[in-house]
Amino acid sequence: MVHNENCIFCKIIAGEIPSAKVYENEHVLAFLDISQVTEGHTLVIPKNHEENVYELSEESAKHVFQAVPKIANAIKEKFNPIGMNLLQNNGEAAGQTVFHYHVHLLPRYGKDDGFGLVWKTHHDEYTPEKLQEMAEKIASGIE
Amino acid sequence: MVHNENCIFCKIIAGEIPSAKVYENEHVLAFLDISQVTEGHTLVIPKNHEENVYELSEESAKHVFQAVPKIANAIKEKFNPIGMNLLQNNGEAAGQTVFHYHVHLLPRYGKDDGFGLVWKTHHDEYTPEKLQEMAEKIASGIE
Ligand SMILES: [Zn+2]
Ligand SMILES: [Zn+2]
Repeated sequence: MVHNENCIFCKIIAGEIPSAKVYENEHVLAFLDISQVTEGHTLVIPKNHEENVYELSEESAKHVFQAVPKIANAIKEKFNPIGMNLLQNNGEAAGQTVFHYHVHLLPRYGKDDGFGLVWKTHHDEYTPEKLQEMAEKIASGIE
Repeated sequence: MVHNENCIFCKIIAGEIPSAKVYENEHVLAFLDISQVTEGHTLVIPKNHEENVYELSEESAKHVFQAVPKIANAIKEKFNPIGMNLLQNNGEAAGQTVFHYHVHLLPRYGKDDGFGLVWKTHHDEYTPEKLQEMAEKIASGIE
């Protein structure tokens, strides 16, 4: 298990910094985000220090996301949100502030509950041919 | 494999509706979102019809999220974004419009690239004791 001594989440995992723990197993920890963007806002992280989606191992991906549905269901049962967003930010430009992979579970209660999306669609700017070309470009980068 | 004949994503999986495919294996399909909120905007879905995070099986969670890092890396390599957001919406109130579980990969290019977050923090409204109580409440709902 990689522990990064400069990482606040690694310190939470090690118990050096307190947290409000929601769930824990051998590979994964879930705890409340102190910012509580919406009530019940929870983070799920791998115990292994991995910075972002680009370096997330298949092992960590499996462990984190197999834990997410049961945590989401418990939040739903206990807080009765009307929806839930899962968000995972990679890089400062995407809003990442702690560089240890983490998934935000954001229960939703209505339009002004603290969380929202800026979502500008661009259907008109892409023909099916252009999309096909882009898809092939990405596919060529997957081994 | 559950196929829902009223589901547009099940139709894409079955090849009844065309898509710009980025990646496919036995359990997972990835294709470009026609709305292209940001350039390279990709969806990753399980082939099994499951509506949302609440009913996502551990099997599908594993398959979807083990595919995500390699797709994210290929998008990064081919489009050179400066960040990437992963988003997964559950329920209309959270912005879900197709009721087949899907993860959005949103490469980021800057502040006005089409995607953004409304993110209001509430640190001051929660004491450590209050957070502890909430965490225990959620934990009590996880078997
Ligand atoms: Zn760490
Ligand atoms: Zn479906």
